[in-house]
Amino acid sequence: MSNLPSLELLIEQFRRLPSVGRKSAERMAYSILDYSEEEAMLFANAITEAKQNIKRCKVCHNFSEDEICPVCADEERNRSVICVVEDARDIISLEKVKSFNGVYHVIGGTISPMNGVTPDDLNIKSLMHRIHNEGTEEIIIATNPTVEGETTALYISRLIKPLGIKVSRLAYGMPVGGELDHADEVTLMRALEGRNEL
Amino acid sequence: MSNLPSLELLIEQFRRLPSVGRKSAERMAYSILDYSEEEAMLFANAITEAKQNIKRCKVCHNFSEDEICPVCADEERNRSVICVVEDARDIISLEKVKSFNGVYHVIGGTISPMNGVTPDDLNIKSLMHRIHNEGTEEIIIATNPTVEGETTALYISRLIKPLGIKVSRLAYGMPVGGELDHADEVTLMRALEGRNEL
Repeated sequence: MSNLPSLELLIEQFRRLPSVGRKSAERMAYSILDYSEEEAMLFANAITEAKQNIKRCKVCHNFSEDEICPVCADEERNRSVICVVEDARDIISLEKVKSFNGVYHVIGGTISPMNGVTPDDLNIKSLMHRIHNEGTEEIIIATNPTVEGETTALYISRLIKPLGIKVSRLAYGMPVGGELDHADEVTLMRALEGRNEL
Repeated sequence: MSNLPSLELLIEQFRRLPSVGRKSAERMAYSILDYSEEEAMLFANAITEAKQNIKRCKVCHNFSEDEICPVCADEERNRSVICVVEDARDIISLEKVKSFNGVYHVIGGTISPMNGVTPDDLNIKSLMHRIHNEGTEEIIIATNPTVEGETTALYISRLIKPLGIKVSRLAYGMPVGGELDHADEVTLMRALEGRNEL
């Protein structure tokens, strides 16, 4: 193997990708050797171009190829409701549902003293700036249901509630189509706590 | 999503890789967005350079960055024993075992009338040429234990045996239906040691 340094380098690059082990990385690298030079060039260009073209929206920090992302640029969206998410890829998941017509704000992580992430490291200042300037009526906090996500949700909610703005949190409970039998204890506890009257 | 054509293109490229589905391809593409421009460039270059630098050995059709692969160029290897494999990546698996000191010949596939692959499509002529010119004493056929692999082994054996050369086949230490690429090193070593004369 060490006799093919170019292949070794390529395998290393594939190994850096999420959930790719040595064996998978090897198979991926070999598959590139079966590509035509043109196909390999297309792949290489896709990587550099995605990196060069995709920036962050100046308003909400969503992925965007323009200064302002398509959600923020859309005149039809309700600017008075902002959904706060940890990561830009969460927006893509939420947009697939097609049931939210407000706008988003990507804070870029969660407060985590263990990892040295303080509120100042997140896009919270720009969120407060938007709230003060855009006539926001409701903030939906959609951080993940983890310890850090909950801490961050609580922090943001305490910051915003005194301004008289409605703050809500995504509902957590049984996944639709799931079975009680398979639900973990925390999920079940949340489902019980958040029960609705019929 | 359709609002990020560069990202869509990159996801498509990742999906072409072996065993990568839509969800994995998305995760891989997003991870590139977290790379620095330099890191993305390194990855892109690794792809084009592997494709450009890695050629086929003029003697045995192994992967090589030079005209002659390191195995064929190695003076210590026993040139009188040639191990015949389907694919160049099989050589990498066999070399890991470190128990074979002969040389290789990559035929580049298997005889498969169903897929229109005839002996003329494989590197069998160049194998015969080597046998006639290199003083070969033994041929170890290490095609995969599949129907096509067996057919190919039989075909080659029938071609070579009349020349009075010893022809052997890897032992079935490997699970039938499996591929060399996936076999663990011990299994491969057993298969080498227990090879049978055809």
